[in-house]
Amino acid sequence: MNVEFINPFITSLINVLATMAQTDLKAGKPNKKSDEVARGDVSGLIGMVGPQIKGSFSITFDADLALEIMQRMLGEKPAKIDADVTDMVGEITNMVTGGAKNELAQKGYEFEMATPMVVSGKQHTITHKVDGPKIILPFSSDAGSVYLEICFDKL
Amino acid sequence: MNVEFINPFITSLINVLATMAQTDLKAGKPNKKSDEVARGDVSGLIGMVGPQIKGSFSITFDADLALEIMQRMLGEKPAKIDADVTDMVGEITNMVTGGAKNELAQKGYEFEMATPMVVSGKQHTITHKVDGPKIILPFSSDAGSVYLEICFDKL
Repeated sequence: MNVEFINPFITSLINVLATMAQTDLKAGKPNKKSDEVARGDVSGLIGMVGPQIKGSFSITFDADLALEIMQRMLGEKPAKIDADVTDMVGEITNMVTGGAKNELAQKGYEFEMATPMVVSGKQHTITHKVDGPKIILPFSSDAGSVYLEICFDKL
Repeated sequence: MNVEFINPFITSLINVLATMAQTDLKAGKPNKKSDEVARGDVSGLIGMVGPQIKGSFSITFDADLALEIMQRMLGEKPAKIDADVTDMVGEITNMVTGGAKNELAQKGYEFEMATPMVVSGKQHTITHKVDGPKIILPFSSDAGSVYLEICFDKL
């Protein structure tokens, strides 16, 4: 997969969490192994469809980090993953994808975003079903880990 | 939400499971409450984007039913939710959405499908983040339960 296509998502995730939740992410080593999966407690997922491309994107948070982001964004820390947390995760997913979409549009890659979905459940995994390669990218922060997964058909 | 829009997904799910896995589904009562969520062990999710519509669709299976469908489709029953099961769930999600897409196209509703994603994890929940109404529809079978969730913006 073209790194030109992945970088806007990475930049956008880092920007969104720095701006919205004063949380600095440090990118780890990308993993392209197709049998690897990210494991976490709450995830935002979104589908993308364009004339040249079709794919899916997910962000998976550890519960601790998701709750700490709530604290930093809203000044309140729920005791567990509740509807407010899934709203926040859905909103972050939308913002990150929207930021990447704008940057990619400037490079001539157009796509539309579907509506986001949020999965909660202890240590769930997400498998993106595409023919093309898949990227899993771990990020660390002072409050826990987040994993970005992205894949596209035909790239 | 327009029932004209939901029915093709219901028909398609029933057809796919009857044809591919000789499993008859009985539809339960639809639920429109926005705070209700389906809970299950393995789910297929897909985003949809069209000129008039944007939304997301998921099918959530109990582990027992997913494993029994493997037995009926492929003659082999894995001991747990593995990569073969998530492949099958992704494929069913694609087929169900594809069937509904064809039927809706004939009625003048066009949309493109993103690539499917599959979530596994004991008793996870999925929240579809849209402004519009959301439908959760439970189905029962001789081998376990499946939940269909579908929602669209602007309908």
